[in-house]
Amino acid sequence: MYNFRNDYSVSAHPAVLEAVVRLGSAPFPGYGSDPCCRRAEALIRDLCQAPQAAVHFFVGGTAANLTAIAALLRPWEGVIAPTTGHINVHEAGSVEATGHKIIPVPTPDGKLTPAHLAPILELHRDTAMVLPRLVYLSQATEIGTVYNKEELEALSRFCRAHGLLLFLDGARLATALTAPGCGLTLADLAVLTDAFYIGGTKNGALMGEAMVIPDPALQPHFFRAMKRQGAVLAKGFLLGAQFEALLKDGLYWDLARHANAMAQTLQTGLTELGLPMLHTSPTNQIFPLAPNSLLPALEELCSFEVWDRPDAGHTVIRLVTSFATTREEVSGLLSGLRPLV
Amino acid sequence: MYNFRNDYSVSAHPAVLEAVVRLGSAPFPGYGSDPCCRRAEALIRDLCQAPQAAVHFFVGGTAANLTAIAALLRPWEGVIAPTTGHINVHEAGSVEATGHKIIPVPTPDGKLTPAHLAPILELHRDTAMVLPRLVYLSQATEIGTVYNKEELEALSRFCRAHGLLLFLDGARLATALTAPGCGLTLADLAVLTDAFYIGGTKNGALMGEAMVIPDPALQPHFFRAMKRQGAVLAKGFLLGAQFEALLKDGLYWDLARHANAMAQTLQTGLTELGLPMLHTSPTNQIFPLAPNSLLPALEELCSFEVWDRPDAGHTVIRLVTSFATTREEVSGLLSGLRPLV
Amino acid sequence: MYNFRNDYSVSAHPAVLEAVVRLGSAPFPGYGSDPCCRRAEALIRDLCQAPQAAVHFFVGGTAANLTAIAALLRPWEGVIAPTTGHINVHEAGSVEATGHKIIPVPTPDGKLTPAHLAPILELHRDTAMVLPRLVYLSQATEIGTVYNKEELEALSRFCRAHGLLLFLDGARLATALTAPGCGLTLADLAVLTDAFYIGGTKNGALMGEAMVIPDPALQPHFFRAMKRQGAVLAKGFLLGAQFEALLKDGLYWDLARHANAMAQTLQTGLTELGLPMLHTSPTNQIFPLAPNSLLPALEELCSFEVWDRPDAGHTVIRLVTSFATTREEVSGLLSGLRPLV
Amino acid sequence: MYNFRNDYSVSAHPAVLEAVVRLGSAPFPGYGSDPCCRRAEALIRDLCQAPQAAVHFFVGGTAANLTAIAALLRPWEGVIAPTTGHINVHEAGSVEATGHKIIPVPTPDGKLTPAHLAPILELHRDTAMVLPRLVYLSQATEIGTVYNKEELEALSRFCRAHGLLLFLDGARLATALTAPGCGLTLADLAVLTDAFYIGGTKNGALMGEAMVIPDPALQPHFFRAMKRQGAVLAKGFLLGAQFEALLKDGLYWDLARHANAMAQTLQTGLTELGLPMLHTSPTNQIFPLAPNSLLPALEELCSFEVWDRPDAGHTVIRLVTSFATTREEVSGLLSGLRPLV
Repeated sequence: MYNFRNDYSVSAHPAVLEAVVRLGSAPFPGYGSDPCCRRAEALIRDLCQAPQAAVHFFVGGTAANLTAIAALLRPWEGVIAPTTGHINVHEAGSVEATGHKIIPVPTPDGKLTPAHLAPILELHRDTAMVLPRLVYLSQATEIGTVYNKEELEALSRFCRAHGLLLFLDGARLATALTAPGCGLTLADLAVLTDAFYIGGTKNGALMGEAMVIPDPALQPHFFRAMKRQGAVLAKGFLLGAQFEALLKDGLYWDLARHANAMAQTLQTGLTELGLPMLHTSPTNQIFPLAPNSLLPALEELCSFEVWDRPDAGHTVIRLVTSFATTREEVSGLLSGLRPLV
Repeated sequence: MYNFRNDYSVSAHPAVLEAVVRLGSAPFPGYGSDPCCRRAEALIRDLCQAPQAAVHFFVGGTAANLTAIAALLRPWEGVIAPTTGHINVHEAGSVEATGHKIIPVPTPDGKLTPAHLAPILELHRDTAMVLPRLVYLSQATEIGTVYNKEELEALSRFCRAHGLLLFLDGARLATALTAPGCGLTLADLAVLTDAFYIGGTKNGALMGEAMVIPDPALQPHFFRAMKRQGAVLAKGFLLGAQFEALLKDGLYWDLARHANAMAQTLQTGLTELGLPMLHTSPTNQIFPLAPNSLLPALEELCSFEVWDRPDAGHTVIRLVTSFATTREEVSGLLSGLRPLV
Repeated sequence: MYNFRNDYSVSAHPAVLEAVVRLGSAPFPGYGSDPCCRRAEALIRDLCQAPQAAVHFFVGGTAANLTAIAALLRPWEGVIAPTTGHINVHEAGSVEATGHKIIPVPTPDGKLTPAHLAPILELHRDTAMVLPRLVYLSQATEIGTVYNKEELEALSRFCRAHGLLLFLDGARLATALTAPGCGLTLADLAVLTDAFYIGGTKNGALMGEAMVIPDPALQPHFFRAMKRQGAVLAKGFLLGAQFEALLKDGLYWDLARHANAMAQTLQTGLTELGLPMLHTSPTNQIFPLAPNSLLPALEELCSFEVWDRPDAGHTVIRLVTSFATTREEVSGLLSGLRPLV
Repeated sequence: MYNFRNDYSVSAHPAVLEAVVRLGSAPFPGYGSDPCCRRAEALIRDLCQAPQAAVHFFVGGTAANLTAIAALLRPWEGVIAPTTGHINVHEAGSVEATGHKIIPVPTPDGKLTPAHLAPILELHRDTAMVLPRLVYLSQATEIGTVYNKEELEALSRFCRAHGLLLFLDGARLATALTAPGCGLTLADLAVLTDAFYIGGTKNGALMGEAMVIPDPALQPHFFRAMKRQGAVLAKGFLLGAQFEALLKDGLYWDLARHANAMAQTLQTGLTELGLPMLHTSPTNQIFPLAPNSLLPALEELCSFEVWDRPDAGHTVIRLVTSFATTREEVSGLLSGLRPLV
């Protein structure tokens, strides 16, 4: 059975694993205060062209999201997020667990624009409501779409003009920044956002997300904020070593380009087979609309997730590629489907 | 320089790392719903003689503590813990972050007894105070001491008689259960406590703590409780594979016995050199009292942590051994110190 | 200027105030443990035909909502509420401040039905999401509508069949239960809901909401839950005395009938003047749609709140009556408007 | 039976109640945006000689404490408080409910000094611990003692030199500031603290505490912080009217002087009868040590609270006077006791 269920189902890229193995029995200081983390942080600051940036390593995305959001907000402040945003749906109320309301914004393509934000600010001038203070976006979004440079610049401009913090969930940052037409770099993100993270878990690492906080004014005591949430890894050097392996020679981007290429081949192939897409995705998640009659055979062929059931006869499924997806899996799925559609 | 700073400074035991490497590029379901976790859970249930127990894998101890405590309590309930308890000191207020007060109990040896608990229950009959509901203990304690079977049975009896939940922080469980005179097994813990965890991070794993909840009545929805705290590892199979490697042939206990033996050799040797101990520890943490004049040379010889400064002329230091400590390190430290004391 | 801004703008009904004045300089035990509260509780239990019910007095509705919701839920559980629900909009994130997500349900008339709930339960079988556990409704709703007996029975049946708690915000309970066609009594609420409160602030009291928890299984430690939120009044006897005055001879219902009658007269009159209603309301809040050109004159005539701006030329305003609204105010407003429309 | 149980057992001073009655049926804007509150705020700013100060009215002390502390702190910050502090004992974990740890300081007289704070700051340089950020004190303390001007100045200097906020719980502020030897004024408090409140509940009001935040930098969005905690009174004008009545002609201070005088007469009388005091109190709470054999007769004579049981034969009781205590009650209690001791 071909694996298209998600992008975190395979251990790690061999080069990343090798970096962990090479640590051997050498002792390191705990909690991220080690030379591996120092080197990975330096690499990230260089790539971000942000020598003042603070970098902190998390094990996973939910902890990264909730810790950063809780650290950036005051109690009465709320988070604006797309209704489909990961924090609004699939994190079991973790942001609310830190005491903050999410103000959801319906948006068909999973992306926020200044036009979404303005009426929310107007409405929330009422002091019986939370004060909107942070805008959460994911890049790529939960439905595979991508903010291009102009779109992120426009959001950033609006946020700064209105005292809003801009936080970017980068669990799938690599596939977004390598997607055609995105045009954004890490250095752009360090200028345009107030905090973002570079996702490792979904792009070749065993685990790990590297949070970047460019502005020194927002950096103090972030380690304590992480510790308080149980979000500091004792053997932090494991995270540093992995990010060093991913970033030092561009492996991180190569893996993402591969995942994107596999998804695009699949998207094109499925379209040619007559399966329409919920929307065209430039990244490693695609969303074909299948007649329900096809599902049993599809379940034999590959693993996937059910995304939506728009009507009684059809299902939107999600197919995800990763660094570990092979051309054989893609062509195998397409070949297997051809006689069925 | 010899490394006695802590027991989480070295990557993982080779057999554990090998188990991770062997996962190769095989795909697994996410979030712990994989065969590696299933096998590790089965092993743990067997060792605990608790076929009904729920087992959940955490990445680290702080997340394990805060998640379990928050999941077990109602909002108005508090936690009784030794003043020296890890949750009361070194977790940056993580239990309070979940909304619960810790009622600290001064106790010289880091251990709680029913005699500590009774007056707290009496005092808190006042409904303007939190309701004490959960007793937190660590085994081994933060100062290396161990509850023996009679002591834990007495605590457990008291807790059950008074409607208190008993929660055992097992970050250093392996060195406790293998310490001479402890006399407790995992099966005992499954009978005597309401939840406990089997620490991996400090006993040979890259990371990982296995939470055991024996009583089905306390098990429902614990996964959601973990997810909400950002405490679920996407590639949960990494945790399952490590615990399987540690537990299937008793490696877990061998590593702890080794760490204990190294610490005992060191403790005996230092005592013979004239350094008194804060107290005699049966586990892998020892606490010699050194004249301050010795510290500069000691800092050249080995890494350690300062534990206390009981007077102007002396310092209590903490020396910790682990699965990775070698006889050469122990004898090297003793040899290096001999001419200095 | 006529006052139609809200139903909490006038001190208290003279009979209620007199009950407070009569307390004189007599000493009472604190925090609600006094004979006034005991008598008011007995009255409420009688009216509810619920001798087992627990009754607790709050000062205001937000504290009542957040305390009850936090007390009834476990950490991973969420609240289903209408998008327009008071807790979802006008309580500054107070439910989220207790750590719980609100799952908002768009519903044009502000009322929930089983048909709203079923798909939410289905969707939230995903364990990465919060567990829906409590249904919040307000009676009357924020837009003046009312659940009748059949509707509440249907909701209650659904909730009980699916393990959901049903919580009723009764800040405007009096006007709902006295509205034509409602058909519900306090005794019905004690059977159909898991907790509800009898609003005093908006129906003639200085302040006060009486929380009723019929099921003994849900009652333990509720006082501590209140205390923890700062929601216990030191001089609790002030609340007991007021509820006794309101309830002992039916004044509570008389005041609500008066408020409803005033609103109905106004609603009929405005409709006759050509102002359509957003919807026909049977209670003390009405929502006429006014051309924007009318607003300046209207602002001269009376106080009100702007509710919505459905298009560039119109505004929905909210007019609220209360125990203190006089026939002169109603006819005065209608007379004043007549030449203008 | 004479009433010495507490200072919140009698409704309100007649002049305060009269101010409420005089509000009649006039309509006021809600949530504190009314002329009564405006006038009371102006009075308070004048008395504080702090024209820039923000003033907010709470119903009770626990809500005032938890709201201010939560509003002033960032998530990783903790509160230093005397072990006997009200927030640490008698508020059911309300500060922890907002996510913050209290660092308790044992102090025999209930008062903090810079000497208590310095070692706490040193210890908490460890980033695995919370960051101490706010110092909580109560004036008068829970055991009736009072900070004099020099003591508060010393604390304030230390706090400002070390980046600590100073928060003063003024539930019994009136009896403290009128106690002999205190030497502090409201204007001093506005200079020396970062936030404090002027307690009404325990000094003649039905209910109410007036929070003063002198520094404009700490003021923004405090109303939303209150709303989020359910701590805003709908009919806020009731609080404004009461504080206006208390403060405009100095009634507030007269009532406190009376309460203090009654307590001092009682303290002197009891001492002369041979009952020693736990400590000499200059305010309205006194703590005689009684042989247990006296308790049954005492319970016949007056209401009181048991404070402590220092040994098997004695009990410390708490006797509290208030604005409503009469000379007859004091002399009656002394006369009643005379034949018994």
